[in-house]
Amino acid sequence: VKRNLREDDVVAQLQKIAGSAAAGAVRLGIGDDAAVWQPSRSHRSVVTTDMLVEGVHFTRETMGFDDVGWRTTAASLSDLAAMGARPVLATVALGVPNDVDLDSLIALYRGIASCAGPAGLAIVGGDLSRAPVMTIAMNAVGEVRASDCKLRSGGRPGDVVAVTGRLGASRAGLDVARGSIALDEPLRSEALLAHRRPQARIEEGRWLAARSSVRAMMDCSDGLSTDLARLCRSSGAGALVGEIPTAECAVAAALQLKEDPDSYALAGGEDFELIVACRRRAFTHVAARFQRRFGRPLYRVGVLRSEPGLALGADGRERPIDLAGWDHFAGSV
Amino acid sequence: VKRNLREDDVVAQLQKIAGSAAAGAVRLGIGDDAAVWQPSRSHRSVVTTDMLVEGVHFTRETMGFDDVGWRTTAASLSDLAAMGARPVLATVALGVPNDVDLDSLIALYRGIASCAGPAGLAIVGGDLSRAPVMTIAMNAVGEVRASDCKLRSGGRPGDVVAVTGRLGASRAGLDVARGSIALDEPLRSEALLAHRRPQARIEEGRWLAARSSVRAMMDCSDGLSTDLARLCRSSGAGALVGEIPTAECAVAAALQLKEDPDSYALAGGEDFELIVACRRRAFTHVAARFQRRFGRPLYRVGVLRSEPGLALGADGRERPIDLAGWDHFAGSV
Repeated sequence: VKRNLREDDVVAQLQKIAGSAAAGAVRLGIGDDAAVWQPSRSHRSVVTTDMLVEGVHFTRETMGFDDVGWRTTAASLSDLAAMGARPVLATVALGVPNDVDLDSLIALYRGIASCAGPAGLAIVGGDLSRAPVMTIAMNAVGEVRASDCKLRSGGRPGDVVAVTGRLGASRAGLDVARGSIALDEPLRSEALLAHRRPQARIEEGRWLAARSSVRAMMDCSDGLSTDLARLCRSSGAGALVGEIPTAECAVAAALQLKEDPDSYALAGGEDFELIVACRRRAFTHVAARFQRRFGRPLYRVGVLRSEPGLALGADGRERPIDLAGWDHFAGSV
Repeated sequence: VKRNLREDDVVAQLQKIAGSAAAGAVRLGIGDDAAVWQPSRSHRSVVTTDMLVEGVHFTRETMGFDDVGWRTTAASLSDLAAMGARPVLATVALGVPNDVDLDSLIALYRGIASCAGPAGLAIVGGDLSRAPVMTIAMNAVGEVRASDCKLRSGGRPGDVVAVTGRLGASRAGLDVARGSIALDEPLRSEALLAHRRPQARIEEGRWLAARSSVRAMMDCSDGLSTDLARLCRSSGAGALVGEIPTAECAVAAALQLKEDPDSYALAGGEDFELIVACRRRAFTHVAARFQRRFGRPLYRVGVLRSEPGLALGADGRERPIDLAGWDHFAGSV
């Protein structure tokens, strides 16, 4: 794979060109998890788009078409969750290779519908095309109260960084699906489920967005190191990461492959947990209420600080974090 | 190319599955040019998605990246025009093969921005991925007054069918770009421009949508025979086509290739004119006002009737029209 393009650089370049076409109703353009506009005075709409490509994001060996449909939908829902938005509707553009039959497309759509339905996301239209490999582009629209809409850029030095769940399980599930490792139950099922049927944190996102002490939010779909670095850059800050909440199955997978368990959380990606920056003094209270509301902890990861870049450690014993997360132009399955 | 899937059949199947996930705010789902929902009492939003795939919809030999960006945008704008909507914003998901560099992506985005800007369409976000061939999925959102929103299904037997411009020029432009034919100026430029820089009929769409006598509208991007057949099926009618307004360059191209000029209009596709069904008694008046407003005729094509299917001719001398338009699962460039 030629690695002359870096995703963030390309986005920055394209943003400049597209910026010249921005219009009055648009409140937030390229660069966050989703774009925001204002269809009427009282409403903010949020729109996000995700593309999954066979051979890049999935293979037929490791995922069924129903799982692919689910995961595409979960990725879109996760982007809406990161904006604190309520899912409304989505469109689906499919590129279909010759060796995919109607049954497979039906399975794909069933996967989409089974993930979309409970989240309140209506599938309202799409486009069909031939393509050399299975390609799915989903576009989702949500709605949010203007005061609740949380961006990547709201974090400030001193804020606590936290995530809504343990990370790395999806990567462990990919290892299992590929046959690279063998895990015992229940870790095996936990890993496969995280990979094939990930849950977007919609309720968590809406709840966190409604807290005034939560100042920035984004999803963690490209790995903690890549995504936290993006939040930091948008917020004009750096971060010192003290604890990395890693899923039990990811630790087990890393041990088998003699890899660093942290790398599963930092660079694994596709976990769809949310990253938040919360005012330091409010964090304990917010985390306690989160635990009561969702029955799971809001995991403290570290703090934002004025020095740019990401570092791992505490109290003077720090090492920089390699930004080896998922770059869609460098990586491939 | 395996031809076991027909686009309209697939859409019908997927519609059934997706229909179960439809929600309250959604006014119109899969099957029209765009989906419609109601973000607040006074507004209707319209959303549409289009995917362009290298080798299926374009090749680098016949179109530059800037033209590809333009045409993707024109296709989305045309879907909004068909709903009578004002363009608001769009997102772009790009699948990028290894041999496409940043300059090409910038050219693509410049093409997008140059088509989007004058139409008031803001490019607000996107997604980037590796892919085996250049793949562009655009999603566009527009707004329309509830009373103006015209669907495919509103036509009734007796209505006059008309189109907003002559057809077939884009197909002639493809012939020129491929080097299959040589046309003299100005026909050569007219054909190439129609293929590479097609104009969506946004103002025409909004104007026609505001006429109460216009009962159904859609765009003609897959060729008149395919698209008029879709309008007829949605409206529970058939159509007798009397006149086919064919672009001068398409007639010239057909003559050179010893093909039927009508086939350029009926099956060429990518023309982005609008098809309307208009109450018979109002048509002359609407067409006269259209001519004054836009300086071009509203071309009468035929009439809707209760017999299903499409036929060509008049006064008892009819022949059925072969539905050989563009099927995205059958055709390829």
